[in-house]
Amino acid sequence: MGRRGGRRFSYGTRSTVKSPSSLEFLAEALRRLPGIGPKSAQRMAYHLMQHDRDGAALLGRALAQAVERIHHCALCNTFTEAEICETCSDPERDAELLCVVETPADQLMIEQTLTYKGLYFVLMGHLSPLDGIGPKDIHLDKLVNRAGDGIVTEVVLATNFTNEGEATAHYISETLKTRGLKVSRLARGVPVGGELEYVDAGTIARAMLDRRAT
Amino acid sequence: MGRRGGRRFSYGTRSTVKSPSSLEFLAEALRRLPGIGPKSAQRMAYHLMQHDRDGAALLGRALAQAVERIHHCALCNTFTEAEICETCSDPERDAELLCVVETPADQLMIEQTLTYKGLYFVLMGHLSPLDGIGPKDIHLDKLVNRAGDGIVTEVVLATNFTNEGEATAHYISETLKTRGLKVSRLARGVPVGGELEYVDAGTIARAMLDRRAT
Repeated sequence: MGRRGGRRFSYGTRSTVKSPSSLEFLAEALRRLPGIGPKSAQRMAYHLMQHDRDGAALLGRALAQAVERIHHCALCNTFTEAEICETCSDPERDAELLCVVETPADQLMIEQTLTYKGLYFVLMGHLSPLDGIGPKDIHLDKLVNRAGDGIVTEVVLATNFTNEGEATAHYISETLKTRGLKVSRLARGVPVGGELEYVDAGTIARAMLDRRAT
Repeated sequence: MGRRGGRRFSYGTRSTVKSPSSLEFLAEALRRLPGIGPKSAQRMAYHLMQHDRDGAALLGRALAQAVERIHHCALCNTFTEAEICETCSDPERDAELLCVVETPADQLMIEQTLTYKGLYFVLMGHLSPLDGIGPKDIHLDKLVNRAGDGIVTEVVLATNFTNEGEATAHYISETLKTRGLKVSRLARGVPVGGELEYVDAGTIARAMLDRRAT
């Protein structure tokens, strides 16, 4: 059945019943959402029209409003409705510390730990030469300007610990160090609550090398 | 890590960085889509704002247009932009046959087989007493009127072969038979391409009972 299952849809071009064009347009538009394929999009479109028209209207308004109002903070590049975001304009923040993250979601995760009181810079991505994403695409020139404002003394690199994130951190580190800034990286090691038996060897090796006196 | 992973988010209420309200509104609205939880909704909202603002604007327009234009066909109850849908107003269709399906998606699947030339009635659901969905909620009165128009001679029940779909078919069958209509059901049996070894016993039992002379 598995192999034949796919073939059934190929008959579709000769079908005589069509969805109304507004419904097809909606299903097509829903495919712009990340991770949503044609079948899911059609199911979502039918669901909204059948069970949740209020939800559809609400989502339509939310999208229009977000597109109109959301832009990047002039200082840290995160999403904001103002010229400068709330964090950057908070006088209680330590302006000498600048934490570099890949996305606003990462920024939110760090905030939720309640351990960091400095400012942020959001790259909106990571270096990925194979995908044609170079330093310009992730606003590195803007970061260099921001970090060189004369107030920032330490840049904390909090990009992901993936290959791309590590490479990005390395590149930024080299660029900023030549400008006399102190650059640090989040500690690598065994996760809190982690059992050694289930932690990968690379993480344990790193934790051993970076061991701390107690 | 698994158990602790969930706890991290509970710190969120004390967080000092917030997403801009339009972004929160968008993430909240995206949760109205079926199968989309809070994390997926946030990821989608960030993705749209970061990488596909055109897509967001397009989806917003598609939703508004669909809500405004799509309604139910006066005859068969499927989605349409006209008073009567294309299928119902097609004079080439055999008006003596009426096929009952649960959803417009099911109707589309039957059309794609190119084996049926009659008309349709779309229930927009199935009976589900436990969820409080009774005959009125799936437009059974409308179906009884439609089938009793004096032209329809046979009603083909093509609800799903799930418990709810079977119960719905049984209920409709009993209701329409008392009105002197011929009622049939899609054949049950081994799927085309199916290997007996991998077909469930219930299906094989039904195929044995319903075996046909060759």
